[in-house]
Amino acid sequence: MSVKSPAIVLLSGGLDSATVLAIAREQGFEPLALTFRYGQRHASEVEAARRVAAAARVREHCIVDIDLRVFGGSALTADFAVPKDRDFAAAEIPITYVPARNTVFLAYALAFAEVRGAEDIFLGVNAIDYSGYPDCRPEYIAAFEQMANLATKAAVEGRPVRIHTPLIELPKHEIIRRGLALGVDYGLTRSCYDPDPQGCGCGHCDSCRLRLAAFARLGSSDPAPYVCGA
Amino acid sequence: MSVKSPAIVLLSGGLDSATVLAIAREQGFEPLALTFRYGQRHASEVEAARRVAAAARVREHCIVDIDLRVFGGSALTADFAVPKDRDFAAAEIPITYVPARNTVFLAYALAFAEVRGAEDIFLGVNAIDYSGYPDCRPEYIAAFEQMANLATKAAVEGRPVRIHTPLIELPKHEIIRRGLALGVDYGLTRSCYDPDPQGCGCGHCDSCRLRLAAFARLGSSDPAPYVCGA
Repeated sequence: MSVKSPAIVLLSGGLDSATVLAIAREQGFEPLALTFRYGQRHASEVEAARRVAAAARVREHCIVDIDLRVFGGSALTADFAVPKDRDFAAAEIPITYVPARNTVFLAYALAFAEVRGAEDIFLGVNAIDYSGYPDCRPEYIAAFEQMANLATKAAVEGRPVRIHTPLIELPKHEIIRRGLALGVDYGLTRSCYDPDPQGCGCGHCDSCRLRLAAFARLGSSDPAPYVCGA
Repeated sequence: MSVKSPAIVLLSGGLDSATVLAIAREQGFEPLALTFRYGQRHASEVEAARRVAAAARVREHCIVDIDLRVFGGSALTADFAVPKDRDFAAAEIPITYVPARNTVFLAYALAFAEVRGAEDIFLGVNAIDYSGYPDCRPEYIAAFEQMANLATKAAVEGRPVRIHTPLIELPKHEIIRRGLALGVDYGLTRSCYDPDPQGCGCGHCDSCRLRLAAFARLGSSDPAPYVCGA
């Protein structure tokens, strides 16, 4: 039996990262999942991450508490309203942007990778669709990888790290098509920015709308729960 | 009265960062201090950071809890012995290396900077002396800055960030000379990797030895407390 190489997979509990987890495994890696509890309003995602990791029989799932609220500054971590039914064509960086979030997440992933001897990090960012987040662009990911390979003892000793972003150029419905082919159960995942207390999606934030539209485009229905009337 | 630009200063409570704080102020910035409580054995540094920030009348001092122990892997955060009276000439990366530490610290600093509208981050890294840490080298800092300026909304909107490392090429005694000229009270600072319960330096770890030798070279004595016999 060959020993698989470990890979760190950032697992939010959303649709994208659940797909990435399945892709990492398909590519022959032993995925180690990393989830952040960062005072996000959508804490139901953390529970979703646990379900996804358990269903995928992930060997190690590390949940790290990080305090991004300490600085304030975003709808996902502070106390102002998540935009509903927003015009995607506006091409602005959405208010749901969290300052330096992917940089903080990838920094932890880099530490985790080095400690576990992993040379691969998988991240479910996407530069298509509405996003507009600067830290989801390919040039940002490339710059992070370059920095990371000057940062660690592992890299200096000849074990550089690779940041994999297999979804970065895929539209949402292609992501779902890919995941369904790999057996991902999207009923376990959660994506809503503003879920109800039971963790059901609102159906009107950017994240719910993109997801619902993508399932519809595939002629399929989203197996995740939504609140009445959404 | 002119309004000074805010700058984030990473303040560990050690000698270097206390000097950097004074330099940032000398350069005309309004320093905002950022300290991490990360399960380090030398938690007395956090108290030292409070003293230094208070003495410098820093307007805002943010202390962030981060859990680097969750991954294991370093003498500063796990449970193995700090090396004493080590041979600096060995030119290896010391066991006190913490995986991706400066990347995690700078990622938080980047978030803090963006939320406070700061375009400057000061960090007391040093590439001379024993260090050997890969994430203290100028090429690493340059790569982080490049990545950071692709990461944030602020940078995309034309407000890039600069990472200042005023000590990076200075030997320890020159750092101290500079700080003394700026009125830094080094008696408030702590640097030991393995202090006693009262926070007194051991006198034998890399950090204590460098510091003591540098004061001696200046014909001065270190005002910080050390244990008997050190």
